[in-house]
Amino acid sequence: MIRRRGALFVVSAPSGAGKTTLCRETRQRLPDLAYSVSYTTRPPRPGEKDGSDFCFVSAQEFQALRARGEFAEWAQVHGNLYGTRASVLQAALDGGQDILLDIDTQGAAQLRRRYPEAVLVFIVAPSMSELEQRLRERRSDAEKEIMRRLDRAREEIATWRSYDYLVVNRDVDDAVNQLTAIILAERARTSRLGLTLPDLELPSKEAHD
Amino acid sequence: MIRRRGALFVVSAPSGAGKTTLCRETRQRLPDLAYSVSYTTRPPRPGEKDGSDFCFVSAQEFQALRARGEFAEWAQVHGNLYGTRASVLQAALDGGQDILLDIDTQGAAQLRRRYPEAVLVFIVAPSMSELEQRLRERRSDAEKEIMRRLDRAREEIATWRSYDYLVVNRDVDDAVNQLTAIILAERARTSRLGLTLPDLELPSKEAHD
Repeated sequence: MIRRRGALFVVSAPSGAGKTTLCRETRQRLPDLAYSVSYTTRPPRPGEKDGSDFCFVSAQEFQALRARGEFAEWAQVHGNLYGTRASVLQAALDGGQDILLDIDTQGAAQLRRRYPEAVLVFIVAPSMSELEQRLRERRSDAEKEIMRRLDRAREEIATWRSYDYLVVNRDVDDAVNQLTAIILAERARTSRLGLTLPDLELPSKEAHD
Repeated sequence: MIRRRGALFVVSAPSGAGKTTLCRETRQRLPDLAYSVSYTTRPPRPGEKDGSDFCFVSAQEFQALRARGEFAEWAQVHGNLYGTRASVLQAALDGGQDILLDIDTQGAAQLRRRYPEAVLVFIVAPSMSELEQRLRERRSDAEKEIMRRLDRAREEIATWRSYDYLVVNRDVDDAVNQLTAIILAERARTSRLGLTLPDLELPSKEAHD
């Protein structure tokens, strides 16, 4: 066994790129991957469960948590507030557990500053026209809302180079394979491996300097 | 489609760690991965094919290639010479094809200097005692040869931190999964992605600086 700190996997994507599905499928493949449930002030959508999809809170509750410095990142998206509990991340990292976060580009940038070793993955639809089509197929949104989401998507996509990885969601299975591969690969990075246990008998770097 | 330069995947391991099997299985899973066939002055082992397992050459031929600067790396291992043809690597990289190299730690260090963006993967057996057992099970080697390989293994293992990834070959399937994951993940690294085609409509970094 090799000791290792937990790693943060941050996934961002414009609405309609398929992020929620990809994260869900990837978590099913990697049951040892923890998930950071975001806090939000937006109302639950049909089928969403409090505490597993999101922690739904009032604007007042959110502001109180924020004022107490409880959020590792927070952002306003489409008029709603979203945040990640710092204590949840810290517990996972200290316990050597990898944790997945599904957050927007503003939040990802904040986490990068706080945790420079975080792994940032950006997911895109194969094209803007494909993204638009996917948003229209949802049929839940009014035309004005679709246009607003597309505008925001363009802004978000412009930040892709600040991410470590780009996954193009052309086919769900391929994209899940790629996201899973990123997590498995990062676990094998020597820069994430601490001192090794006697079992492996790998000399530590210090011993040879 | 996103344009991308080919990537070099360099795999090293002490004898007995299972590198040859892992590389073969990984190549079967990723048929689009090219393979750099090493030149060597060592005699073929039973079943090894000239041109696919190694390019077997005489010491004279090897020295002539080396003198002409044809090798991207070369090294002496257990008294035999091994080298990688630079032209083969360059053709793969320029053609956008990923290429796998199975080379020793000295060669890996040379390649890292020549191609800083190369991906270096080190494979280890779960422990030195396991490694020793695997070498003994081969039964092809005399005791003195086994001891020589173990001594060399210790020296090679000491370089593990200069590699990007460490794969512990406890179970062949798991190790192949991990090696395959490393290759898939590296293909998605934003640092390897060039300018994007209009299809994706991803603004290039330059356009936003």
